[in-house]
Amino acid sequence: MYSLAVSDHVMIAHSFVGEIFGPAQQLHGATYAVEMEVRRAALDGHGLVCDIGLALATLKAVLGELNYRNLDDLAEFRGRNTTTEFLAGEIFRRVKVRIAAGALGPGTLRVVLRESPVAYAAFEGALD
Amino acid sequence: MYSLAVSDHVMIAHSFVGEIFGPAQQLHGATYAVEMEVRRAALDGHGLVCDIGLALATLKAVLGELNYRNLDDLAEFRGRNTTTEFLAGEIFRRVKVRIAAGALGPGTLRVVLRESPVAYAAFEGALD
Amino acid sequence: MYSLAVSDHVMIAHSFVGEIFGPAQQLHGATYAVEMEVRRAALDGHGLVCDIGLALATLKAVLGELNYRNLDDLAEFRGRNTTTEFLAGEIFRRVKVRIAAGALGPGTLRVVLRESPVAYAAFEGALD
Amino acid sequence: MYSLAVSDHVMIAHSFVGEIFGPAQQLHGATYAVEMEVRRAALDGHGLVCDIGLALATLKAVLGELNYRNLDDLAEFRGRNTTTEFLAGEIFRRVKVRIAAGALGPGTLRVVLRESPVAYAAFEGALD
Amino acid sequence: MYSLAVSDHVMIAHSFVGEIFGPAQQLHGATYAVEMEVRRAALDGHGLVCDIGLALATLKAVLGELNYRNLDDLAEFRGRNTTTEFLAGEIFRRVKVRIAAGALGPGTLRVVLRESPVAYAAFEGALD
Amino acid sequence: MYSLAVSDHVMIAHSFVGEIFGPAQQLHGATYAVEMEVRRAALDGHGLVCDIGLALATLKAVLGELNYRNLDDLAEFRGRNTTTEFLAGEIFRRVKVRIAAGALGPGTLRVVLRESPVAYAAFEGALD
Repeated sequence: MYSLAVSDHVMIAHSFVGEIFGPAQQLHGATYAVEMEVRRAALDGHGLVCDIGLALATLKAVLGELNYRNLDDLAEFRGRNTTTEFLAGEIFRRVKVRIAAGALGPGTLRVVLRESPVAYAAFEGALD
Repeated sequence: MYSLAVSDHVMIAHSFVGEIFGPAQQLHGATYAVEMEVRRAALDGHGLVCDIGLALATLKAVLGELNYRNLDDLAEFRGRNTTTEFLAGEIFRRVKVRIAAGALGPGTLRVVLRESPVAYAAFEGALD
Repeated sequence: MYSLAVSDHVMIAHSFVGEIFGPAQQLHGATYAVEMEVRRAALDGHGLVCDIGLALATLKAVLGELNYRNLDDLAEFRGRNTTTEFLAGEIFRRVKVRIAAGALGPGTLRVVLRESPVAYAAFEGALD
Repeated sequence: MYSLAVSDHVMIAHSFVGEIFGPAQQLHGATYAVEMEVRRAALDGHGLVCDIGLALATLKAVLGELNYRNLDDLAEFRGRNTTTEFLAGEIFRRVKVRIAAGALGPGTLRVVLRESPVAYAAFEGALD
Repeated sequence: MYSLAVSDHVMIAHSFVGEIFGPAQQLHGATYAVEMEVRRAALDGHGLVCDIGLALATLKAVLGELNYRNLDDLAEFRGRNTTTEFLAGEIFRRVKVRIAAGALGPGTLRVVLRESPVAYAAFEGALD
Repeated sequence: MYSLAVSDHVMIAHSFVGEIFGPAQQLHGATYAVEMEVRRAALDGHGLVCDIGLALATLKAVLGELNYRNLDDLAEFRGRNTTTEFLAGEIFRRVKVRIAAGALGPGTLRVVLRESPVAYAAFEGALD
C-alpha cells in the first residue's frame, strides 16, 4: 500500500456548547496544522500516488473556505460543535467531493488536524 | 473512522538483562513522549470522540505511576525487560482498565512512546 | 551563559484592524505554542537557572489570563492589534512582573510564540 | 499489535520525466528523513519487537546504497521516476530482502519518507 | 527586542570539491527548510515587526531562484562549494538586497537552513 | 556571523538532592536530544564553519562518556546535581577541550539539551 501526504494550516475562531467544554465555551480560536494522506495499492504511470501539486491545491482550496473565519457564523455549522474531530471529518468530506469520481481509483483518505502540541484529531475513510 | 489523540511525557530509570542490549544493560534512563490515540466509528452528541480533558487526565494518572521512578525497583516489573515496546503495551493495559466498560463503546486505542529522535515503539488493540 | 526554557500553549480568538491584514481582519483565532527562556550567567546552589516547576507555573498563570478568550473583548487590548509579536512582548512583561525583584539576579528573558508551522514571533529583554 | 520504529536520513539528486512534474523535471535533490516501522503481534523473549541496533544497522545499510548519489545515474532506476512514493516502496523491498526469511515471524513493515515540511510518502506491506 | 520569523523550503542538487567532503563529492541533493527571522527594537503603527505576507513573499522569491536547480550549473556559484552555511549567507544577502533601504529601519536578520534532522547552518547580520 | 549545528542524543539515569526537586529526588532518567552550534565570523577555504563529520564525531565522543550511565555513580559528579543546565555546561567544557587550541579560530559554542517536549536547557560561551 502506497501513501502520499501533504500539509497546510488554517486559523479559525469558534466556541462550543455544553458544560463538558469548560472554558472552551467562550469564543476562542485555533491554528490547525492539517495533513491529508491518500493511500492507494499501486502507483500510476508517472510513479505517483497522485499529483502532489494538485493535492496541495485541493487541500488549500478546502481550507480556504474556513481560514480566518469565525465558524460560529457559518450557516453550515449552525447547531453543531465544530470540534477538532468534527472538522477532520468535514475536511475529509469536502476533499472527497472535489476528487472527480474514479479519478484516483480505489483508495483511502486520512485527514489529521493538530490543534496544539498535545492534541490532534483525525478522520479516515474510503475514497470511493 | 474518527480519532482523538493526546500526549504527555514521563522520565524513568531502568536497566536491561541480556547481552543483546549492550551498554543498555547498565542502569540508564529515558524521557518517553507518550501519545494516546482513541479511534471510534462515530462522534457522541457533543461532537466528540471522547472528552479531551478526561483523556489527558487518564493518561497523566497512568504515567504518574511510572514518572520519576526506577522501574527496576517496581514489583510488577520483576523479571521483565521494560523495553519501550513492553511499556507501550503496559500503558495500553492500564489506560484500558481505567475506561469504564462500555463508556466509549466499540473502538481501538493506540499508545506510542517516543524514546529519542530516532526511535519509537507502540501498542495498539481493541478497547472492548 | 546558562539558559532554561519551558513551554505551554494557549488558544485565543481575535481580529486585526488595517488593510495590511487582509482576511485576518475577520474574527479568527490561533493556537500559540509559547516558549519562555531564562538566561543567567551562573547556576544557583542547587545547580539550577531557576526552579523548573515554578517557571512552568508562572508561564501557565500568565497564559491562563488569555486562554480561551476573545482578545477583542479584553479592556487592556482596546485599540491595539494583538499581533503575535505584540503578544510576545505582553507575555514577557507579565512574566517579568511576577518575578519578585532580584529573585533571579541579573539575566534576560525571551518569549517565543509559534502561531503556525511557518511563522513565529518573539520578544527578548533584560530581567531587571 | 506491537510496533518498533527507527529512523535515519539520506541526501540524493534526481530529476523526473513528464510535464506533470513542472520545475522538478530539472535536476534537483532532496533530504529524505526515513522512518521504518516493524509491527508484530507479540514480543520475543527479551521483550522486543526486534533488536533496535540491528534495525538501525539494516536501515543504514539500505540507505547507504542511495546516499550522496544521483539516482538518474543508477542502472536499477533507468526509465523510472524515482518519486518519493516509489522510493518508499524500493526501500521497503530492500529492507525485506535483508531480513532472513522467518527471522521476525509474521508481521508488517511500513517505510515513511519525509521530503519536506509539507509532504511525505510511505509504503506498507507484509513481511513474509 | 522583537522578532518575527517565517519559513519555507527548497530542493536542490549540488556536489562539493575537496577530499574533506568524502561521499558528498558526488552529485547529491538536499531539502533545506529555511527560516528567516527579522529583529527590530520596536513595532510599527500596526503592531508589526514587518508585514508577514510580504516577508513570506520575499523569502519565496529568493528561494525560487534556487529551487529545483543543480547549483553546480549556476554561473554565480562557479568555483565555490555551496555548503549549507554558504547558502545561509547567500540567502541573507539576497533577502537584504530586496528590502528597500530603510524600509524596516535598524534591525538584524538571521537565516537558518535545516538540511537534515541532525544538522543546520545559519547566517546572521545587520539589516542596514 | 555563520553558524553550523549538529545533534545527537544520550540516555542517562540520575537523582537530585534538595526538596525543591520533589519527585525528581528519586532515581529516574532522561533522554537528552543534544544540539551543538559553532559560530564563526567567516568560512574557511572549503566554505565551511567546520568539518560537519568531525563535529558529529566530537559530539558523539563526548556523549559516549555519559550514555547509558547512572550519573550518580560517576566520580566527577559527586556532590553535584546533574541538572539539565549543569550538563549543558559540562558538555560545553568537554567539547571545548577536544577542540585543539586555535583550530577553529575565534568563535562561540552553544550546547542545547532538550529533556522533554516542554523543557530544554543550554550553555553558551567563547571557544577561545
